[in-house]
This record gives sequence, C-alpha cells and structure tokens, in this order.
Amino acid sequence: MEILKFIKMQGAGNNFVVFEDMEVKHNDLGTLAKKLCDRNFGIGGDGILVVRRSKIADIQMIIINSDGSYAGMCGNGIRCFAKYVYENNIVRKSEFTVETGDGIKVCHLFIEDNKVKAVKINMGRESFNPKFIPALGEEEIIKKDISANGKSYNITSLLLGVPHTVLLTEDGGFKVEEGAAIETHELFPQGTNVNFCRVVNRGEIKVNTWERGAGPTLACGTGCCSSVVVCNKLNLVDKSVKVMAPGGILTIEITDDGIMMTGPAENVFKGEIAV
Amino acid sequence: MEILKFIKMQGAGNNFVVFEDMEVKHNDLGTLAKKLCDRNFGIGGDGILVVRRSKIADIQMIIINSDGSYAGMCGNGIRCFAKYVYENNIVRKSEFTVETGDGIKVCHLFIEDNKVKAVKINMGRESFNPKFIPALGEEEIIKKDISANGKSYNITSLLLGVPHTVLLTEDGGFKVEEGAAIETHELFPQGTNVNFCRVVNRGEIKVNTWERGAGPTLACGTGCCSSVVVCNKLNLVDKSVKVMAPGGILTIEITDDGIMMTGPAENVFKGEIAV
Repeated sequence: MEILKFIKMQGAGNNFVVFEDMEVKHNDLGTLAKKLCDRNFGIGGDGILVVRRSKIADIQMIIINSDGSYAGMCGNGIRCFAKYVYENNIVRKSEFTVETGDGIKVCHLFIEDNKVKAVKINMGRESFNPKFIPALGEEEIIKKDISANGKSYNITSLLLGVPHTVLLTEDGGFKVEEGAAIETHELFPQGTNVNFCRVVNRGEIKVNTWERGAGPTLACGTGCCSSVVVCNKLNLVDKSVKVMAPGGILTIEITDDGIMMTGPAENVFKGEIAV
Repeated sequence: MEILKFIKMQGAGNNFVVFEDMEVKHNDLGTLAKKLCDRNFGIGGDGILVVRRSKIADIQMIIINSDGSYAGMCGNGIRCFAKYVYENNIVRKSEFTVETGDGIKVCHLFIEDNKVKAVKINMGRESFNPKFIPALGEEEIIKKDISANGKSYNITSLLLGVPHTVLLTEDGGFKVEEGAAIETHELFPQGTNVNFCRVVNRGEIKVNTWERGAGPTLACGTGCCSSVVVCNKLNLVDKSVKVMAPGGILTIEITDDGIMMTGPAENVFKGEIAV
C-alpha cells in the first residue's frame, strides 16, 4: 500500500487528478485512473495527469481518461499540468516544452506572485478538407443546411485534432442536447463534436459544446478554437477572440504559427490517497 | 482564507466530505456544502458531514446535501460520521449517541485493529398506514396492482422516514429507470422512492433503488430496510437479511427495538482545501 500525494486541479471546469511518477512506479495507469477518477469510491475526475521525466522535452505529460483509456493531448489538461510542474519546482521556467501523446507542446506561463494564473499553448491548425474531418463528399462543409431532429441546421465542419461542427445561434436558439443527432448524422462517418456558437461582438463569442460520445461539456478547448476559426472565416470576428464557455473563459488567437489558446488553471485541493 | 482539513468518506457508495467545526466557525453551511460538493470545481460529494459539539448527546452531526439543503438524517452518512469521530479520537467509545436533525441516534461500532469496520444504527420503525406514507385511499397498499409506463406493477408501500414502494422482481425483470413513472404515480401525492427487490433466499435479497427526485442510487439505507420489512411481511425472508445494493452490502435486522442497519464506512482520501 502506497500513499499517493496528488493535487486536484481544473481548467475551465475540466478537472484532473495530478501527481508525479518520476520513477515510473505505476505501470498500469489505466487501472489506476479508473480507481482515482471514480466520483463515488475515488477522488473523482475527468482524468489523471501524470508527471514523468522526458528525454526529448523539459517534462512529459501522460493523460489517462476516467474510463482508463489513453488520451494523446488535452488543451485544458496541459494548462493544469504546466501550473503543477512550475509551482512544484519541477520545471522552473516561464516557457517550456512538454512531451505529449500528440508531440511536443510549448507552454507559455502567465505568472503573478509566483503563481501561474494562465497558460498559453499552440493548438495546431485546422483543416476544412472533408477527407480529413472525415465527412462524406468532396466539397468543404461551409454553411451547409442539413436535417436532424426533424428540423434544419446550418453547419460548418472542420478537423482540429478531432472532427468539429459549428452552428451559429442566438441565446436560447438551440439546446446543446440537439447536438446528439448532429453528432451521428450520416455526413460524419466517425461522428462529430458539435459547437453551438453565439457571436457577441467581433472580439467575443459564447460556445456550448456537445462532445462526441460524452454529451454536454463545461469547456472543450478544440471546440472553442474551432468556433473562433469558423466565425473568423465567416468574417464575424477578428483574430483574437474571448470565448465564454459554461466552465470558464478562454482566449483564442489565430496566428501564423497556429491557433493559440490561453486559459486558466486552478488548484482545487491537495490530498493523499492509499493506492 | 482558511485551510479546511477534511476526509472524503463513503458508505455503500454514498459519499461525503467530513470535517470538524467544533467552534462553529462556519455559519453558512449551505453555501459551503455547494462549493465543496461540486464535482468539477470542488471536492465532490453527495453532501457534507459536519462534526460539532452537542449538549444532549456525545456528539452532533450536521448533514447538508450537495444542493445546500439541510438533511435531518442519513443512514449511510451516520456510519461515516461515527467512524470519523472514533478514529480521530473525538468520541473514543464503541457505542455512543449522536444528535441529528431526526433526534438522537445510538451508534454501535465494530472495531478491528483500532479501525471502525462497520457501524450499526437503529433506523426506527415503518408504517403501512396510507395517511402517513402519504398515499391516496384508506387501505394499506399491499401487493396492489397499479399501471405505469403502460404496464402493470404489483407494489407494496410504506413510510420509513420517507415514502417507499417495494416491487418484487427477477434479475433483469425491471429497469430501475421504470421507477420514475411510479415515483410520480397519482397514488402518491408527495411521490415515493421505488425499490426493485429480488429475493435470493430467506437471508439475502438484492435491492435497486430509484430515489425520489434523484434517480438511481448506489444504496438507499431506508430503501434497503423497507425492502426487508416488506419481504418479511410477505413471509419471503427471515428477520435478519443481507441486502446487496449496487454500492455495497448492508445487513438489516427487524427487532423489537426497531429496524437495525449494519453497514460499512470507508476513508477514501484526506485533503486540504482553501475556503
């Protein structure tokens, strides 16, 4: 029986059990994640973030989902991870590299009074090519009308890490649960995330995401990025946009280097559990 | 900003944030419970159990639900509470009294190696009087056929702290979600909890509870007691019965002093949070 010290953290409501395993004591991280993330019999969390040494970057992040499955990368998770490794003196730099299952990511930290207040990371680039989304047909899906739930939706779809579909709406225009039928629309052989997006002004939008296979989420990083990319393509917003999601606020910038996402990360509590 | 030390505990899957507030520093426990029990932005839990001094018993337990509402008493909660106060040297007796919102309860502790393994408490007595349940009509509801979900259910109803309805079933005979339509059946002006109960033998039953206003639960203490009372009344079980609920095993005994419930309580982890 080992006592595992951890910090429970959240980024825009997406919440994680974060701990160090530098010496690789834990080999079966899937079983451990299921136990730790159980909200009744464990700590509770959307996943675990494990801190390990890296041979190719300043530090390595391993993310395992609450169901024990491996996740390559997570925008909300890496902000928590970056705050953890800085504040726990593992990597004491305001900009450093993290080895993830989706390659090496650069984290830029915003530090106040020795605490990490926000983290910026490069989320990569989008593709509207239906072959990559994947979506049926040869043409890009831009402002296309489709039928679902017995009504018509005007959608724009793209790949940004995962398939995303963006719908413009007014406040209360759609319910996020309507995303279920769009997720499984015949147009998307592997399904799609669905983002209901309201433009407030050229620098601010509200986004509610229906996550493929998971339902409504507090904040989907790639969904917020996709919404800004689509709104910018449709000339509704500029290149730097504040995105209000139910779980928090993210700032998305479209740059020549890729789509930059800046957002919060918070320590919720620290604890010890026997594993 | 205060650092609150707590232990996260669970009894048959019902889980609580347990902490001491002997000096009554926290007055707004409703707001605190909502913050602490939030599963994304807080510790997460079904409620908080607050340890306070009592003038009329060995110790006082205050339970606040995760929505901030006050709960008088909770069978799974009081076992966790009893383990906490014993193992943290607050009340160092194997039998002691607890002041609750539902009167003074006597806790009997089963101790091994200085650790509390199980706790027995008196859950009170049942009433089949429809006036008290409350249910419409003058006659007791014993093996009565009612219609819901477009089919027929054979039910027995009683009051045991809260209104309970028990249905006998075979494995896979009913889905616990069918309880929703029974909860709101016109027979029950204040609704009813619904227990789907399978008799294994005269000393063992399986119970799945649909909780009024909350849906499926891992283990409902009064629901397990109600199921044993009904099965005993129908002469299907004896007076001491092991009840297997999804979240754990409870032992229910029908005695002249009342219905005794014995069950587990576990420390899940300990932690500190800024409040």
